[in-house]
Amino acid sequence: MTDAPEFRPQARTPRGLQDRRGLDLALERALLARVAAVYERYGFEPLETSALEYADALGKFLPDADRPNAGVFALQDDDDQWMALRYDHTAPLARFVAEQGQSLAKPFRRYAYGPVFRNEKPGPGRFREFVQCDADTVGSALPEADAEMIAMAVEGLEAAGLPPGSARIKINNRKLLNGLMTAAGVADEGQKLTVLRAVDKLDRLGPEAVRLLLGEGRLDDSGDFTRGAGLGAKGVEAVMAFTAAAASGEDRAATLARIAGVIGGSAEGDAGLAELQAIDRALKGLGIGEAQAVFDPSVVRGLEYYTGPVFEAELLLSTADERGRPVQFGSIGGGGRYDDLIARFTGERAPATGFSFGVSRLVSALKAAGRTEAVRARGPVVVIAFDAGHMHDYFDVARILRGAGIAAEVYLGASGMRAQMKYADRRTAPAVVIIGDDERAAGTVTVKDLDLGRALAAGVADHEAWRAERPGQATVARAELVPFLQRILGAL
Amino acid sequence: MTDAPEFRPQARTPRGLQDRRGLDLALERALLARVAAVYERYGFEPLETSALEYADALGKFLPDADRPNAGVFALQDDDDQWMALRYDHTAPLARFVAEQGQSLAKPFRRYAYGPVFRNEKPGPGRFREFVQCDADTVGSALPEADAEMIAMAVEGLEAAGLPPGSARIKINNRKLLNGLMTAAGVADEGQKLTVLRAVDKLDRLGPEAVRLLLGEGRLDDSGDFTRGAGLGAKGVEAVMAFTAAAASGEDRAATLARIAGVIGGSAEGDAGLAELQAIDRALKGLGIGEAQAVFDPSVVRGLEYYTGPVFEAELLLSTADERGRPVQFGSIGGGGRYDDLIARFTGERAPATGFSFGVSRLVSALKAAGRTEAVRARGPVVVIAFDAGHMHDYFDVARILRGAGIAAEVYLGASGMRAQMKYADRRTAPAVVIIGDDERAAGTVTVKDLDLGRALAAGVADHEAWRAERPGQATVARAELVPFLQRILGAL
Repeated sequence: MTDAPEFRPQARTPRGLQDRRGLDLALERALLARVAAVYERYGFEPLETSALEYADALGKFLPDADRPNAGVFALQDDDDQWMALRYDHTAPLARFVAEQGQSLAKPFRRYAYGPVFRNEKPGPGRFREFVQCDADTVGSALPEADAEMIAMAVEGLEAAGLPPGSARIKINNRKLLNGLMTAAGVADEGQKLTVLRAVDKLDRLGPEAVRLLLGEGRLDDSGDFTRGAGLGAKGVEAVMAFTAAAASGEDRAATLARIAGVIGGSAEGDAGLAELQAIDRALKGLGIGEAQAVFDPSVVRGLEYYTGPVFEAELLLSTADERGRPVQFGSIGGGGRYDDLIARFTGERAPATGFSFGVSRLVSALKAAGRTEAVRARGPVVVIAFDAGHMHDYFDVARILRGAGIAAEVYLGASGMRAQMKYADRRTAPAVVIIGDDERAAGTVTVKDLDLGRALAAGVADHEAWRAERPGQATVARAELVPFLQRILGAL
Repeated sequence: MTDAPEFRPQARTPRGLQDRRGLDLALERALLARVAAVYERYGFEPLETSALEYADALGKFLPDADRPNAGVFALQDDDDQWMALRYDHTAPLARFVAEQGQSLAKPFRRYAYGPVFRNEKPGPGRFREFVQCDADTVGSALPEADAEMIAMAVEGLEAAGLPPGSARIKINNRKLLNGLMTAAGVADEGQKLTVLRAVDKLDRLGPEAVRLLLGEGRLDDSGDFTRGAGLGAKGVEAVMAFTAAAASGEDRAATLARIAGVIGGSAEGDAGLAELQAIDRALKGLGIGEAQAVFDPSVVRGLEYYTGPVFEAELLLSTADERGRPVQFGSIGGGGRYDDLIARFTGERAPATGFSFGVSRLVSALKAAGRTEAVRARGPVVVIAFDAGHMHDYFDVARILRGAGIAAEVYLGASGMRAQMKYADRRTAPAVVIIGDDERAAGTVTVKDLDLGRALAAGVADHEAWRAERPGQATVARAELVPFLQRILGAL
């Protein structure tokens, strides 16, 4: 191929997709390894399915969106069957479990991580491919299986590096919401949705406005009238009492007692309460404290998807937006019980529950919280290449460093000393090793500490104090090179 | 979603794709982590690009196939641009480097692993999605960069778990082949291909048949005549001497000296020899022995793709086929210098070299070689659930085991004792923990050693000898449970 091709494509990342490297990728890998270790200690096995599934197997239920199978990347195979890139890890799990049938020991407990693909409009921080990490138990109808998901979420997020107390799992139960609707005299799905939308505005508009939205309706400040759900006075009070139970800030048992007072009597509500009581007991056995997992009846997730307990992982950290204003991170994951997903294939209900979190979002949170100590996104020590005739010697030094576990490379470009120093700096090398004629004659090497220069430039080091410990540049015997570099590498 | 949907798709893995779990997946993850550690010590950074690229960016060169951009999974985006799933990690790298331009420090050294997709006819052991692991250096024209790839291949394969000495890197140089063609008086590309095809048959047909195929042609045993390359006597002898140099089994320096005797005089051949000499010196500096990397001029890889040194990783292990006959594993990876790939985008040559191996194939090799000790694909300890009223207590025991780093789960299905024991066995649990009323009253737990039963069934354990050390079933104080299980877990 000596003649260049005529056509020159433009080198470009496809729209809404991204390349990942450096600190972000190192953090992602470290946190996935730690979360995987937690999940494996809980007896969950890893499973990797293909990125492609038959489109009909992906089905129509997307937990976040309650909408038909749109927004996937689909293509037709040469046998005319339509395939699509998975949009989550749950649909492939349901396909796997249904396909395996009786040959799979149940409950089947698996975790999975990897990219999922959504054919949606991209935006800032909103990509069409992103990494999710899921754990699911298929084949257990017990509320204890839900409790385990909650405990794994708590432990997984802490293992990932979040400061203790910075994440909280909020728990609700679809059956409580259904019980509330009965208690409040809600007649149909339309009215139910209006009630839920009103509840959802509690934080923003306050209780008086929500009362109006639950009843006849509300005239807002701009003069627009929003029609209400049309509940009677008793119904409005039931919903308000329910949401007050959520906001009480009491412990889990007390919250449940309050909720029971509001919706007690509806069979479905009572079933939901009993499940939450079992979850509370199991969480105690699992060592999950009151601050780590709370009951919050205002949590509403994927109405068409979840069938029982639902959970949402809320990050209590805040970060700053472009203008320096604090922004709550909010939800970084969630899950719940979805007993109908496998029935799509088999016609038989298979009880299932799971928890999923967005890995990139968690990486952002770790960075915002300054929790990046788990990884060192630092370049290798660079051995300067002065003379093509001595490459063999440079390689020998690099080999010795690698043997001691120190990442090292010989500069292999075509540029001179200055450019090599600049290269080492751009690679965030902690140090360069220089072997000139003098060093070779004396059996020494010269080490230049690049961390020092960077620390001074960033204003994080006091020159004199640092220099007392780290001389910036030193010529040491070859046998001293490894311990000398280990001191530099350990210092930061 | 209380009413089941009418349409029931068939749960099926798409054609030619697979689900991965258990020992295979555990081995894959362990080996990738170890190979990544080697590559990072060499100063290579991880890079993850999207699985999707614009189809025009994928280009027309597939290293294994020398064929146009066919066999990819392509789909059209909503802005009418064609995207395709990557078929290797090199094309996305070329796109990335071209896109980054001057903002990327060069040489750019990265490794990447992950699935690649080929829209080809699947077969036994031949999938349309498989995992590859690549390392590449972009921006170095030095043969030392090629030497480094070879050294990384050697060290990476050993770190992955291959027994030392079971893999060998065979090295050649396109420039030697071109030099040979000049020395042999080859006139055009067609004649060249016929020569290379004849050389490729040396192992199978022997030297006399190859002589005929290089000259006028050959009548085979069935009476069919294969037309030869039409070389004269001098040309035939040059090619045969070249291949003899390959087969000599001498050390790298001696092989180069022999090759020099055959093709010396051609400018391109001399350049190729000088590169291999530099590679030899660098390999010595990197500590790569003569048995680990050999020069073998019969290696021919991706003619349209590689421009200089080429390498092939050959596994010297053999395994047995379905009928018990020994089968050589052969090639498990390769690479070389491809200086033209980035020029597709930029019009400017960017020197690059890389090495790639097939991860699933390496996993198969590790299994065939019995090198699975790096991972234990073993289930968790299962706590039997007797009584719904005591779930809290079972969870407490599981929590204590997890806290000691022992994978544990409480059985969460709906079945009785017998089925729970069977479940624990199918999950390859090392042990079950039983807490009945007697144990609860006495503050003890009963542990049943499932490894014992499996070892007896497999005939690997002598009942009496094992029993002396491992009692099969024992009732121990709760405080003794962790050390007791640690003994069981450590024993296998």
